[in-house]
Amino acid sequence: MDPKLAERWDSFQSKIRRVLHLRAILSLLRWDEEVYMPVKGAQARALQLRTLSEILHQYETSEELGNDLAFFADHMDQLNPDEQILVNEVVYDYQRAKKIPASWVGKFAETCSRAYHSWVQARQGLNFKMFQSELEEIISLCREKADLLGYEGSPYNALLEDYERGMDVTQLDSLFAVLESRQSELFKSVLDVQHDEVSVFDGKTWDTNKQWSITLRVLESIGFDFEAGRQDCSVHPFTTNMSTDDVRITTRLNPQHLFSGLFSSLHEGGHALYEQGFNESDKDTWLAQAPSLGIHESQSRLWENCIGRSYAFCKFLLPLLQEYFPEEMKDVTPEVLYREVNRVKLNFIRVEADECSYNLHIILRYRIEKDLIEGQLHVSDIPDRWNELFEQMFGVRPPNDALGCLQDIHWSHGSFGYFPTYALGNIYAGQLFERLQSELDIDDLVSRGEFTPIRLWLKQHVFNVGKRKLAKEIVESATQKPVSAEPFLHYLQTKYKMLTHS
Amino acid sequence: MDPKLAERWDSFQSKIRRVLHLRAILSLLRWDEEVYMPVKGAQARALQLRTLSEILHQYETSEELGNDLAFFADHMDQLNPDEQILVNEVVYDYQRAKKIPASWVGKFAETCSRAYHSWVQARQGLNFKMFQSELEEIISLCREKADLLGYEGSPYNALLEDYERGMDVTQLDSLFAVLESRQSELFKSVLDVQHDEVSVFDGKTWDTNKQWSITLRVLESIGFDFEAGRQDCSVHPFTTNMSTDDVRITTRLNPQHLFSGLFSSLHEGGHALYEQGFNESDKDTWLAQAPSLGIHESQSRLWENCIGRSYAFCKFLLPLLQEYFPEEMKDVTPEVLYREVNRVKLNFIRVEADECSYNLHIILRYRIEKDLIEGQLHVSDIPDRWNELFEQMFGVRPPNDALGCLQDIHWSHGSFGYFPTYALGNIYAGQLFERLQSELDIDDLVSRGEFTPIRLWLKQHVFNVGKRKLAKEIVESATQKPVSAEPFLHYLQTKYKMLTHS
Repeated sequence: MDPKLAERWDSFQSKIRRVLHLRAILSLLRWDEEVYMPVKGAQARALQLRTLSEILHQYETSEELGNDLAFFADHMDQLNPDEQILVNEVVYDYQRAKKIPASWVGKFAETCSRAYHSWVQARQGLNFKMFQSELEEIISLCREKADLLGYEGSPYNALLEDYERGMDVTQLDSLFAVLESRQSELFKSVLDVQHDEVSVFDGKTWDTNKQWSITLRVLESIGFDFEAGRQDCSVHPFTTNMSTDDVRITTRLNPQHLFSGLFSSLHEGGHALYEQGFNESDKDTWLAQAPSLGIHESQSRLWENCIGRSYAFCKFLLPLLQEYFPEEMKDVTPEVLYREVNRVKLNFIRVEADECSYNLHIILRYRIEKDLIEGQLHVSDIPDRWNELFEQMFGVRPPNDALGCLQDIHWSHGSFGYFPTYALGNIYAGQLFERLQSELDIDDLVSRGEFTPIRLWLKQHVFNVGKRKLAKEIVESATQKPVSAEPFLHYLQTKYKMLTHS
Repeated sequence: MDPKLAERWDSFQSKIRRVLHLRAILSLLRWDEEVYMPVKGAQARALQLRTLSEILHQYETSEELGNDLAFFADHMDQLNPDEQILVNEVVYDYQRAKKIPASWVGKFAETCSRAYHSWVQARQGLNFKMFQSELEEIISLCREKADLLGYEGSPYNALLEDYERGMDVTQLDSLFAVLESRQSELFKSVLDVQHDEVSVFDGKTWDTNKQWSITLRVLESIGFDFEAGRQDCSVHPFTTNMSTDDVRITTRLNPQHLFSGLFSSLHEGGHALYEQGFNESDKDTWLAQAPSLGIHESQSRLWENCIGRSYAFCKFLLPLLQEYFPEEMKDVTPEVLYREVNRVKLNFIRVEADECSYNLHIILRYRIEKDLIEGQLHVSDIPDRWNELFEQMFGVRPPNDALGCLQDIHWSHGSFGYFPTYALGNIYAGQLFERLQSELDIDDLVSRGEFTPIRLWLKQHVFNVGKRKLAKEIVESATQKPVSAEPFLHYLQTKYKMLTHS
């Protein structure tokens, strides 16, 4: 790079870093809000978040940044490949941000704020109608957003793009059709076998201090760097980061359920390994980001389920559990533990669903979302449609809307297009895990608690890529085959075959 | 206010709130850095702090804000008294901020960053020379700052103004001369009597979980609102706030010293009551701020010392201590406890100094600071001057500079003009406490743990005033007499007379 160009590049980078720093600060404000903020601090925090979000938006869409981007788009030939990708990525985000006028952002924020309160009341009152008019406004704003952003095919594609770039309803419909028929069938057959099994873990109380220690030991084992991160407790577990060297996860411990907190920690720990694992040289740059939520979720699902709920992991885990709960774990074998952590139950609530049926909850919601955004479903018809689809998939109707279409907060946040990434995460995880199994002796490594080779494989094939490829490209390049639901379904079927035939 | 003026006022207020929100966010970043941030997060945090500080400075000195201020300065007659004060206060801060060019701010930040590392090395190596050249640069920059700000009399006045508006070296010299001669004499005489006393608390170990519970109980007693604040642990205890409804303090617990954490919590708790106690209607406005560090420190000192180290408080505290440490506290009487928490020792280190000698450490440093800023002392002569003054006051010379002029971090931060506020805090606290004693039966209230009337008195006379008056005016108006060191000295002399004659 010639000195003049280099000088401009530095100035461009400092603008980029400012945006990244402001985003990191927003993450800290939100983390603190969930984890340590005293209750009365909520009102002031909302105002602080709003102020900072507005300032961030100014910097993300500033004319100066636009000028730099235009300049470097004209000088691409003088940039190295990483620099070119970086410019393209920032251009992509910049142009999308510029398409949404501040007036839309303000109106959307205001509507969601009202919608949240309506949703809370509607759920408490088991009365969908109390949420209906705000949800209609949100749908209308989301459709407007899709028009502003532009799209081919379904307007839902425009919304999906924010969470899973490169994905569209055609691909989703095809992936989900396979998942739905096969998982629905599998779920019913497993439930048939398991429904009268009695758990030896039920009715016991599990000291939460000991649970906490176990989660820390497990996180340490899988390679979570506690000098570059921490775990705390919160009502809804999540992962966030202020930098690749400051990655924070939360868990929630329940004295009645030993495995709730543990698998929550493993799930968030999987997200965290990704955030801590970006290429060293990408730190504090635009490239140290996951390209999509789906690929991020593949990492949490891989550690939580493919690894964490494997028989090998149960062999690794049991001695640890016995160390903290010698009395309760005296007669437990790896087999008993394996059966327990894979128990299948009919659940109306998505977040409590087992691995076998989780995607069905997602697909149900996706179908409703798509119909709403495409204008093929009226908001007032959601409850009936929800219950009908639920019955098709699970064989029963939810007894009320709190256990049905009102269960999740996300629609009141206006997060349309986001749910499919959960199912994509499972699909990606299944495909990556199949490849891992073919390259490493996973069962042997996991049962010995030797997680480093697994983490290094993921670092090489996923983490280090950063934002250089789309999620789909990462999976396809790591596994040398097109993205498909088959590996995940094969994984599920193998597991439950073993569990229901032993 | 006519509608057009009201509209402009709203727009002005939203600019003000933006500044307050950004300051609150900076506070959270710093709080998190001291309390929960993982070690490797430091580098990214420094960059985030820098980015946000720069953005804050832009908003604090923006032309738009300047225009609003000029406009309202021209329309003062249409504002109510509170609005007038608010405008005047923002004008004051705005004009000071505008006097300092961004180039000075950048150079100062860069110098302090280098100076901090030199100071760490100099202190470790017991070699003042390693800090000398950076300290010279800082002094030179501080002198430049004084010139930029303008002053009457000593250039030190310009620096002092940032921490204690309305105070100057003439007033300080007069207050401090009295403190120095009387406290130096008192200290020597108390030390003579106490130096061979044996403490029944030494050599014992105090469970830190129990200590933690005691600090929480004490904070609750004095009226700290845990729904609008929290306590955590940090290496250096401090108080910060994100709003009047989110006030956070820290303490540090030492298993060898039962009272270190407890009095630390009381000290920071005193600061916190002030922050939580501002007038409800001033919330989220410029007025919900203390007018100076000295008045803030008066609140921490009042609770830590005047109340916390009183005989009445020992009567209140003892049963609580006995609840957690029944064995260790079996034979302890309120008298023994009172003697213990008021033990006087020769200490080279300010932060470990007792109430009797604390101000002497401050005065020593003040004298050196003033001479440096006035150009009457060369940086290279600091160690000798320090040791000479210390010997005058305490009768011994520090054995090395780590126990002398290199002990505190603040000079490396460039905080010149700040130390005197510690001594002013003691003076103000003494005067407020004298008045409190004349209006309420303090001994009776404190011994019964009835702190509410005390807090309400402080709320009425100090907290609710906010930034409407200068520190000195608050004290004078609350006590109906001019600020003087006499009440504090009288308080000290009474206490130590009792302690040394019983």
